[in-house]
Amino acid sequence: MTGQSEPGRPSGRPLIGLDFGGTTIKGGVIASDGAEPICTGSAPFDQNVPSTEIYTRAAKLALELESKAGLGPAEAIGVGCAGLFNRSTGEVLASANMQNLVGTSLTDGVSKALSGRHVVIENDANVAAYGEQWLGAGLHERDLVLVTLGTGVGGGVVLEDKLFTGPGGNAGEIGHVVICQRPANSDYDAPYAKELECACGSYGCLERLVSATAVMRRAKSSGLTPDLPDLCARARETDGEERALLHQVGRDLGAGLATLITLFDVNVFAIGGGFGAALDLLKPGAEESMAERRYGTREPKIMAATLGSDAGWIGAARLSAEPS
Amino acid sequence: MTGQSEPGRPSGRPLIGLDFGGTTIKGGVIASDGAEPICTGSAPFDQNVPSTEIYTRAAKLALELESKAGLGPAEAIGVGCAGLFNRSTGEVLASANMQNLVGTSLTDGVSKALSGRHVVIENDANVAAYGEQWLGAGLHERDLVLVTLGTGVGGGVVLEDKLFTGPGGNAGEIGHVVICQRPANSDYDAPYAKELECACGSYGCLERLVSATAVMRRAKSSGLTPDLPDLCARARETDGEERALLHQVGRDLGAGLATLITLFDVNVFAIGGGFGAALDLLKPGAEESMAERRYGTREPKIMAATLGSDAGWIGAARLSAEPS
Repeated sequence: MTGQSEPGRPSGRPLIGLDFGGTTIKGGVIASDGAEPICTGSAPFDQNVPSTEIYTRAAKLALELESKAGLGPAEAIGVGCAGLFNRSTGEVLASANMQNLVGTSLTDGVSKALSGRHVVIENDANVAAYGEQWLGAGLHERDLVLVTLGTGVGGGVVLEDKLFTGPGGNAGEIGHVVICQRPANSDYDAPYAKELECACGSYGCLERLVSATAVMRRAKSSGLTPDLPDLCARARETDGEERALLHQVGRDLGAGLATLITLFDVNVFAIGGGFGAALDLLKPGAEESMAERRYGTREPKIMAATLGSDAGWIGAARLSAEPS
Repeated sequence: MTGQSEPGRPSGRPLIGLDFGGTTIKGGVIASDGAEPICTGSAPFDQNVPSTEIYTRAAKLALELESKAGLGPAEAIGVGCAGLFNRSTGEVLASANMQNLVGTSLTDGVSKALSGRHVVIENDANVAAYGEQWLGAGLHERDLVLVTLGTGVGGGVVLEDKLFTGPGGNAGEIGHVVICQRPANSDYDAPYAKELECACGSYGCLERLVSATAVMRRAKSSGLTPDLPDLCARARETDGEERALLHQVGRDLGAGLATLITLFDVNVFAIGGGFGAALDLLKPGAEESMAERRYGTREPKIMAATLGSDAGWIGAARLSAEPS
């Protein structure tokens, strides 16, 4: 069988990826040529257990996946995880939803539980972008920016088929692109808006205007329903205040994307996350505001992310195949 | 002498760079190990002569430099030039101050005038950033963002010792990072300010707030002298309105730099251009506003660019040594 793939089976080397989320570790096996996922699985994540227990669960999931896929041990395991890391030691420096992992080395932890296998770690939004560019919205694109609209605004940048993490490893924090000025002392100021203060310490971050949370707040303060599916349904039905608000949210999103074009010279954007389902309502405003603002020569494309919650483990699997 | 450098002479292969400016083509020879420039020279640039004449002047300058330096023909010539290019053909697609070159291939033009030698082209702000990171403010840094404050705001991004130009080749347009929202229809709006409309089609670009031109306008509209050296002198003498204005300009600059940190995860900034001489007055405001806004973990450093108008040809020379 050497050098030949069985009929009906994906060819290419099988890769394993795991994605640590707030309540679940998702994982799967996929062939290195990007054919259909071979198998997927999950294990519970829990903030209230010691990190060693989490690493044991992750290792057990990886072994189950290998066994399900009929494989021997993979050369490396890719892991996506929310937070900031020390890339040389694998230590989790900060992670809002995984406090039990902070201060421990995720790569060492998972590796030890897998008899010393090589473990690669990357930010969850980055692996999702990498997965989405590989096999999702970016299937035919070499460059892709993924923007996820959820509780916050996350995302990742893929340039020329490579994940862009910047010299410090924390680049592409799209949710924290500033699109509004803090008013104090400026001669060109917006009225000060407390709700534009961001948890990151900044003011007027994209996240404060276009995340699901922000849109709920904006709807409420305009006397509209803060129930997003309901808000979107009304906006689709009638050309009223709901549609106008979502148009403006789209414009704000476009302002952030325009800055990404200016700085990265990218032109392909995939919108994901729960509130990404409103893309049909956001797109006209985003395109309008990008057309006004954009510096550059290529037409931007905005499309829906297609891999959903599988993007993360798929991107992590892809990353496991790269030389570290 | 093979393999050995003469005492007192720079070792390393000599490299030639040219920098096309609005009135002058500057050029020089420098050793590939970055020792002191071996020699420099210049030729007049003129928008009113045919492109072939410009390319002949550039070629003549290159030959003069080689002769002055006592060299045979360099393997390649690096050229910096304002504008947008087609990178595969070397065609100048747009250039405000070099209309006579638009539609012609700069690389072919200079190459033909030099009997077919290899010519490498890059944006003038990018080569300046590359020069500054190599031998100027970034001498001991692997990453550097150069921001030039002049008639406009230009700049370039060097990451991990490499020039970052993005997948489309036009990345790092720092002057066009949006830091103010266009007011129309927004629920978080500044009063509409016509002077924040940018020539690029956008609104609230960094360039519209912190370029020399913008600061002259801002000073005038505040009833202060629009003479920048005079404005700066007064600001240094007395803690009055002049200092307050320049503090605010610094804050606006910091807002732009904060977005660069968020997206590129860089932390070293060199400020150049004519109005860069006001850095002592801008820095406190910039640091204040970056400290408020910044996402990331590394302390930012803001310093003065040190190579002045030599940065461009030095960066172009460096680029000529890279595989294309």
